[in-house]
Amino acid sequence: MTKSAFGVPGSLSTRHLPGLRGLSRKDLVAILDSAQAFRDGFDKGGAVPSSLSGVLVVNLFFENSTRTRLSFEAAEKRLGASPMNFSASLSSTTKGESLRDTVRNIQAMGADVFVVRHSCAGTPGFIATHTTAAVVNAGDGACEHPTQGLLDALTMRQRLGDLSGKRIAIIGDIRHSRVARSNIWALPNLGASIRLWGPATLLPRHPDAFGPAVTVAHSLEHALEDADAVMLLRIQHERQSSGLLPSLREYRHSFGLDESRLALAKPGALVLHPGPINRGVEVVSEVADNDHSVILDQVTNGVAVRMAVLHLLAGKKNG
Amino acid sequence: MTKSAFGVPGSLSTRHLPGLRGLSRKDLVAILDSAQAFRDGFDKGGAVPSSLSGVLVVNLFFENSTRTRLSFEAAEKRLGASPMNFSASLSSTTKGESLRDTVRNIQAMGADVFVVRHSCAGTPGFIATHTTAAVVNAGDGACEHPTQGLLDALTMRQRLGDLSGKRIAIIGDIRHSRVARSNIWALPNLGASIRLWGPATLLPRHPDAFGPAVTVAHSLEHALEDADAVMLLRIQHERQSSGLLPSLREYRHSFGLDESRLALAKPGALVLHPGPINRGVEVVSEVADNDHSVILDQVTNGVAVRMAVLHLLAGKKNG
Amino acid sequence: MTKSAFGVPGSLSTRHLPGLRGLSRKDLVAILDSAQAFRDGFDKGGAVPSSLSGVLVVNLFFENSTRTRLSFEAAEKRLGASPMNFSASLSSTTKGESLRDTVRNIQAMGADVFVVRHSCAGTPGFIATHTTAAVVNAGDGACEHPTQGLLDALTMRQRLGDLSGKRIAIIGDIRHSRVARSNIWALPNLGASIRLWGPATLLPRHPDAFGPAVTVAHSLEHALEDADAVMLLRIQHERQSSGLLPSLREYRHSFGLDESRLALAKPGALVLHPGPINRGVEVVSEVADNDHSVILDQVTNGVAVRMAVLHLLAGKKNG
Repeated sequence: MTKSAFGVPGSLSTRHLPGLRGLSRKDLVAILDSAQAFRDGFDKGGAVPSSLSGVLVVNLFFENSTRTRLSFEAAEKRLGASPMNFSASLSSTTKGESLRDTVRNIQAMGADVFVVRHSCAGTPGFIATHTTAAVVNAGDGACEHPTQGLLDALTMRQRLGDLSGKRIAIIGDIRHSRVARSNIWALPNLGASIRLWGPATLLPRHPDAFGPAVTVAHSLEHALEDADAVMLLRIQHERQSSGLLPSLREYRHSFGLDESRLALAKPGALVLHPGPINRGVEVVSEVADNDHSVILDQVTNGVAVRMAVLHLLAGKKNG
Repeated sequence: MTKSAFGVPGSLSTRHLPGLRGLSRKDLVAILDSAQAFRDGFDKGGAVPSSLSGVLVVNLFFENSTRTRLSFEAAEKRLGASPMNFSASLSSTTKGESLRDTVRNIQAMGADVFVVRHSCAGTPGFIATHTTAAVVNAGDGACEHPTQGLLDALTMRQRLGDLSGKRIAIIGDIRHSRVARSNIWALPNLGASIRLWGPATLLPRHPDAFGPAVTVAHSLEHALEDADAVMLLRIQHERQSSGLLPSLREYRHSFGLDESRLALAKPGALVLHPGPINRGVEVVSEVADNDHSVILDQVTNGVAVRMAVLHLLAGKKNG
Repeated sequence: MTKSAFGVPGSLSTRHLPGLRGLSRKDLVAILDSAQAFRDGFDKGGAVPSSLSGVLVVNLFFENSTRTRLSFEAAEKRLGASPMNFSASLSSTTKGESLRDTVRNIQAMGADVFVVRHSCAGTPGFIATHTTAAVVNAGDGACEHPTQGLLDALTMRQRLGDLSGKRIAIIGDIRHSRVARSNIWALPNLGASIRLWGPATLLPRHPDAFGPAVTVAHSLEHALEDADAVMLLRIQHERQSSGLLPSLREYRHSFGLDESRLALAKPGALVLHPGPINRGVEVVSEVADNDHSVILDQVTNGVAVRMAVLHLLAGKKNG
């Protein structure tokens, strides 16, 4: 492993980041260490390597996501890139062009990196097989959102130290959550265990597939018990219309995190949420805004993690 | 007051520019002087300080405005910034996130400056109370459009010299105009007096609130009499459907500026319009395109004024 | 003709590129030579002149075109520009502003170059008469798409050498194709001859206007006979609804290029397509993806050609 000028591990064993499933612990730690270096740089205001200067990054968003797109764009610009944004609604895909042809075309324009958001699980991996550019998954269907999983891990590591032996409760719509899934693949690899809870209709169908460190709780109390961190997931409003959820009021009543419920976790347990928050549904404002909430820290770490991933996958060595 | 490397006043007494109401004369003049320096630079083609290089500017537009957005973007890029554009229709606000949470999130990504356009009066000021970033109002409802007021003042100052004692006629939909309002707060501070005129339904309800230098005329002739400059406001087509205006034809007949009406003002009186012009409604082409029209000068000064505001509020000292 | 630092011809005899019709052979060759130098640079990874650094390029797209917009944006960024994107659907033109006023306004903001896409033939030329900025046509109605014509010429020149005496077949919807038209004006100027073929409803009404080097074939076989290159045009689906085309299946049957038809052309004849491809309609995948297909090369050359045009029209001499 070479060291870059920025003093972070200079390489990964992979050319792409389609997800955290199967990512080696060594690569995982390399990304987190690099992200921590960038985060330290924010706080100290130090110089940032222009390792993406002259690197053509294309943000290929087939699904709207202002928040994730802005975070990637901020990361790209801090590293000196001048990214191009492609959003599907304006694109040739509406003219019947195949995804493979779209990708090969933009590749032929000189793209070095694709940051891909798509509503279909597996799209970033598919794209990776048709391009020489590096591919980073920015969320694919209900499959993965690896940079979210990484920023969650980074945020917890900053507050809890080594995650080995730590217990994480994940509460909400596990079944449809790419955020949950990326955490489920990454955290056990760092030594943590996970307890899942949510409405029966929104729990995973085959939790056994996640390995021994991931279990389904049998009650909210059980999920929270001894938890070092509580990660809440956003409830999509469309779950109601599709009959999976009776009402937001009922959700808040049975699953919403308030101060009395948070007291069931370890003293000082962290509260995480990928945002945007439905205040008063997944979490009450008293908890979302208190000292143990690291929700805004997650956002800042998101930029650091995306810088790390882009720097390690596509940064120029002497950037 | 320190001098920056660019030779313009190096600081303001404010961190934000929510409006021109309450802005001190000293700050007002500092911005105009700095803008004049930038404008001189355009004409001479001199070097521009990269004082926004590495500064993260976010254009937060909750209301469409191609023209104002392009002008801010041109100003940001000339100063070396690599701005990010956020437009509301694509954003999390459609997912029910509160404005405060949206702002705190983008802030957490490292935003240094927010340029805010919103249909609700007071939004930029509200945002300023929830962020450590500098906030510049790019138009809020019918409240203010401070950089427009500044560019109007700069344009008049370039042609008329010191504005002390100058008379400005503002004609049109005063009631709904943020442009009029920013001028109303700024020009008297520079010594000018203002006479307002327009359809009775579109005049301000409480003109007394504007202070002694601002009066409502009793006829178009009275408004134009002895005017050093005539500022026309754009008629929004929706004023007809809402019953405030009988027809554009009637508006043109009673309020449209043509050569014979312009002759009622001082010889050589300036003609201003914030654009886009409805040719043949607020103003006929003979007047819009003649030598005393400074409409395109206003546009060029708009970039200079925005550079000045951004440079003074957020520019790095040694940029 | 001066030489720029980059070793390419340093000037053109024109300030604008509204089309290839009437462009001198000397200018045509100067652009192609410059584009070749940029293309060689891609392959060798050499330094690129920052000749558009500080140059304000505005991409003025009144018609959606992700692909062409991305290619121009890639070209602009490689040359150090920080372009601004203007798309009509969000613009003042929807507020009834005239095109001339829109252009003069953006010009007044300091635009140095307009890259214009518009559904009306002649718009880029019209804009050129109302601005001091350089104007590049990025497609105007069914009139011209000059950078496409140039990239086609460059691609053929790379594979076939001097185009003098070469025979090019153009097959498809000639009547509505700006791509065909730009090729029709440029290729004969480089010494090539063109044979056109397609459904009778989609052939040009007055092919005589194109000069002696351009003829209409009397059959597909005749069009392909002895061809050095076969250029296919995209079938727009709306041609069916407007009654000009019975069905895509029938089109494929009578005009689609497959291996047996390609065998009628010269051995090793090139296959070109401006994209996006309707696979199985204009061309079968076996042909689109084989060794003689230069479709992706066209895309890469598109960036090189756009760099050359922008560099020659608006690049700073010591950039």
